[in-house]
Amino acid sequence: MRTHFCGLIDESLIGQAVTLCGWADVARDLGGLCFIDLRDHEGIVQVVAEPSQAEGNAAVIATAAQVGYEDCLRVTGTVRKRESVNNRIRTGQVEVVATSIEVLNKAEPLPFHAHENPGEDIRLKYRYLDLRTPEMQRRMRVRTRLVAALRRWLDARGFQDIETPILTKATPEGARDFLVPARMHPGEFYALPQSPQLFKQILMMAGFDRYYQIARCFRDEALRADRQLEFTQLDMEFAWVEERDVQDAVERMVREVFLEVIDVELGEFPRMTYAEAMRRYGSDKPDLRIAMEFTDVAELVKSCEFKVFTDWANHEDGRVVALRAPGAASLSRKQIDELGAHAAKYGAKGVAWMKVEDAGKGREGVSSPIAKFLDDATLAAILEATGAQSGDAIFFGAATYRLASDFMGALRLKLGKDLGLVQEGWKPLWVTDFPMFEWDDEANRYVALHHPFTAPAVDSIDDLRANAKTAVSRGYDMVLNGNEIGGGSIRIHRPQMQATVFDLLGIGAGEQQAKFGFLLDALKYGAPPHGGIAFGIDRIAALMAGTESIRDVIAFPKTTGAQCLMTDAPSPIADAQLAEVHIAVRPKPAAGTGAG
Amino acid sequence: MRTHFCGLIDESLIGQAVTLCGWADVARDLGGLCFIDLRDHEGIVQVVAEPSQAEGNAAVIATAAQVGYEDCLRVTGTVRKRESVNNRIRTGQVEVVATSIEVLNKAEPLPFHAHENPGEDIRLKYRYLDLRTPEMQRRMRVRTRLVAALRRWLDARGFQDIETPILTKATPEGARDFLVPARMHPGEFYALPQSPQLFKQILMMAGFDRYYQIARCFRDEALRADRQLEFTQLDMEFAWVEERDVQDAVERMVREVFLEVIDVELGEFPRMTYAEAMRRYGSDKPDLRIAMEFTDVAELVKSCEFKVFTDWANHEDGRVVALRAPGAASLSRKQIDELGAHAAKYGAKGVAWMKVEDAGKGREGVSSPIAKFLDDATLAAILEATGAQSGDAIFFGAATYRLASDFMGALRLKLGKDLGLVQEGWKPLWVTDFPMFEWDDEANRYVALHHPFTAPAVDSIDDLRANAKTAVSRGYDMVLNGNEIGGGSIRIHRPQMQATVFDLLGIGAGEQQAKFGFLLDALKYGAPPHGGIAFGIDRIAALMAGTESIRDVIAFPKTTGAQCLMTDAPSPIADAQLAEVHIAVRPKPAAGTGAG
Repeated sequence: MRTHFCGLIDESLIGQAVTLCGWADVARDLGGLCFIDLRDHEGIVQVVAEPSQAEGNAAVIATAAQVGYEDCLRVTGTVRKRESVNNRIRTGQVEVVATSIEVLNKAEPLPFHAHENPGEDIRLKYRYLDLRTPEMQRRMRVRTRLVAALRRWLDARGFQDIETPILTKATPEGARDFLVPARMHPGEFYALPQSPQLFKQILMMAGFDRYYQIARCFRDEALRADRQLEFTQLDMEFAWVEERDVQDAVERMVREVFLEVIDVELGEFPRMTYAEAMRRYGSDKPDLRIAMEFTDVAELVKSCEFKVFTDWANHEDGRVVALRAPGAASLSRKQIDELGAHAAKYGAKGVAWMKVEDAGKGREGVSSPIAKFLDDATLAAILEATGAQSGDAIFFGAATYRLASDFMGALRLKLGKDLGLVQEGWKPLWVTDFPMFEWDDEANRYVALHHPFTAPAVDSIDDLRANAKTAVSRGYDMVLNGNEIGGGSIRIHRPQMQATVFDLLGIGAGEQQAKFGFLLDALKYGAPPHGGIAFGIDRIAALMAGTESIRDVIAFPKTTGAQCLMTDAPSPIADAQLAEVHIAVRPKPAAGTGAG
Repeated sequence: MRTHFCGLIDESLIGQAVTLCGWADVARDLGGLCFIDLRDHEGIVQVVAEPSQAEGNAAVIATAAQVGYEDCLRVTGTVRKRESVNNRIRTGQVEVVATSIEVLNKAEPLPFHAHENPGEDIRLKYRYLDLRTPEMQRRMRVRTRLVAALRRWLDARGFQDIETPILTKATPEGARDFLVPARMHPGEFYALPQSPQLFKQILMMAGFDRYYQIARCFRDEALRADRQLEFTQLDMEFAWVEERDVQDAVERMVREVFLEVIDVELGEFPRMTYAEAMRRYGSDKPDLRIAMEFTDVAELVKSCEFKVFTDWANHEDGRVVALRAPGAASLSRKQIDELGAHAAKYGAKGVAWMKVEDAGKGREGVSSPIAKFLDDATLAAILEATGAQSGDAIFFGAATYRLASDFMGALRLKLGKDLGLVQEGWKPLWVTDFPMFEWDDEANRYVALHHPFTAPAVDSIDDLRANAKTAVSRGYDMVLNGNEIGGGSIRIHRPQMQATVFDLLGIGAGEQQAKFGFLLDALKYGAPPHGGIAFGIDRIAALMAGTESIRDVIAFPKTTGAQCLMTDAPSPIADAQLAEVHIAVRPKPAAGTGAG
């Protein structure tokens, strides 16, 4: 239907006849002389309909005069040098003098225009109009290039792209499953996979050597601001490997793909243990673009007058942490209150602070509600330990080690942003040596920090049982600019160790057999050592495209209300159709019964 | 963990030390001299543990003596020339003399051995063992190479790989949807997509120019022998195109990919209308490897004595078709009865036949239960029209045009196989000019032959309404060796035409708006002409891998009973979990009520 793309017309085509297809981006009728900006996926070119002696000229001008926004056109014409060059578009040196204009599809007046900056709900309802904007086209193209580059890298290295089922078995660990009633098996259900974890491990036991899949995963969880019900991960698994084999390979992959897709050199990734990351940054995914680090001051405040400090400084599992924020002495009381409120969201009961007006003057130079509880020596020691400079502020958190780390870590991120202390650029790292288990007070049992198939660092079952609380796993995360973009581990490859870990997680023998019998069986019949990793494609694409929201790199995302505003999914289904799959909608609880 | 792959050890490595990982395929202990066939994904190499003066040699031999089937081993040793060359394996010129053997994982005795030719149920239950066999590894690798080759082809030509949702809206047309209850929207459901059809059309309206996706699709239909609940298609769509643009591009793609992956030259594809395919082969996906063609004989039998013939020969919508089967005169009565039974499965009430013992002898030369109803001239005319030779048989079908074509088409395929008349090789073709609608007697309305978004060949709404019964669509199928491997069309791109087609299909204005409102809207706001195609990846992979069953090219397929025998999906779900998503299992109908 066309000979060229609109956005690629250039001076090399001057004098040539071309046929173009596209949307009318702008159309102006200057009384018998019409200009149309014709747009396709490559860009825009100016089309002119002007009076001439040519046959049919009057019809061309008449058609051009009627063209409206977003009409679909086919234009034939001759390329010529443009009199008034437009440097804002790639084709700005040239224009196309139309000899024929065909309206392939007339557009009705649009419900909104992109320059009106419509709200996200409107953008999602009319997603086809939203996606037509050059910015959304650019973002989606970054994603396409990312995925293509990853595949090329993997295909060239013998990784086999293998599909695993979407209709699979419900899993008891992890997030909530989406369920699918099975028509042929009344009362039974398939579940959508939260990840292909067990299938990829089984593939290694099945003799495949290197596996990958760009896999759709599903989690029926409350949608936080930037989560989706379904998301995409690059899922990888390697047979016959140890940690560094996986890490070195995928670090190289990520480096090469960033260079190829967005021309960024990530360099070699620093490595940090989980313990170090929590100690220095209060996060297992530290944003290293922010230089601020924690200072532990428990030793300094063990016997001060401030009870919150002394309580936690003397607590076996307590932490008292100070965070020096450069230049933060200028923050207003209101801003400091906002910081406290932010930390409270992460569990802080309060955040103490100290403004350092003049670092040379000791007590005279600081202003702080807690200064009166600290003697001169303690105050001086804190200033020294944190390296505070005039104009800084110091924030303090005291709580259990985990809680203090969490809320002070959140505070660090907010301070970094508020104070403009986030450096430009890219800061990747590896975080390793995660704890094997976390104790869940509510459930009164251990839960797996990664997942129940992650190998412990120790090989001995007795050792793991004896030291479960402090056991370290063979898990690892790849972190970029404060985002966990990838997570993986070496897996358990022996049935006895797998059964032991299930046991420590409170999964009894019967439940093990019912839910994971096939895994325990497979481990018996010659399972090689294996490990892998999974990368969050939506997040990486958003980072590369320079947008905050993963919804900007997903063609048809759902809202935080779990709806597709364009198609109006989910929707009610006729009872007869539900009967076919042997289910019924539960009646709503009567009002006022308090059931939610 | 290793320096080389087992299957790639060759003479260039003689004298070198290597470390290998793999499974013990075979292990023989000849009393202090042990041979182990070590297998990885690349193949097998022989490992020898033999007495020597080297330190630790006794331990190596002791370990080797204990090795059993499918143990996971790491072996270090030196490559040397083998004394007795084994030409059945790629590494047969060499062996590895072990200096160390480490048992990474001991295997328990296997539930079966591959050479025992286990039934498919056992293979699926222990899929990890089944997939370890070289034949399954080969098949799965063909699939990986197919998909990688397709992607490479498409990526190089500007096709954008864009993901569309799996949790989407129920569609009323086509097969039965899988439903997913929506936790956040009580009483509402998502549906799994039967294909990304509407999303890919919307992408064209959203300004993308060329789209593809290797997409998972879902149909909750009775599983025929070779169907799966979920299947994979290469889904493609093109903006600003006509039929030949799509067809020429994808024909080139398929040709190049067949050449790359299995070294087959398909040549240029012949083209055939639907009408011609039905007339000559009784199928819209004719297997051209079988040369046999139909002969229409209605004109010859309009006034014979055989009522079935005359009834249908004089019926407005009747067909009387003859099929000459070379060499089929030798078929036994039992074989002929089997052929009749086969045709009956496709709706035949009976199949008449005529053996041609001696083509030169007229009535004397034939044996047939219906010969007595045909006069000499008719008999001679049939023999001449079909070109029957001595030794042939002729089969006859008489019914409505469609039914006679269907069962005689099925008979043609069975005859082709039974008589060994299926030529080796590859026979692709395009089938075009499908009817727009088929009349559904049961529903008393038209149904779409492709789908309701397929454009009619005529541009005029009035023309389509007036001639709906005979209207031809802009749909096309790619057929290979009797399989429809791809199907597509030019789509409707104007809202009025789309509404008209919905109307003709009995979808009223209210239902159109509720179910397809977003499509009708999108068509209003500047929808370009567009079209596309979808290819069945499972089937193409099976064809390339030379296997009859698509289950052989799917890592974890389900049975015809819709179960995964490995993980035991689907499975019952606790009522509390169902309550979270606002559904309940319907009570089973009481026995004896006759409800099914």
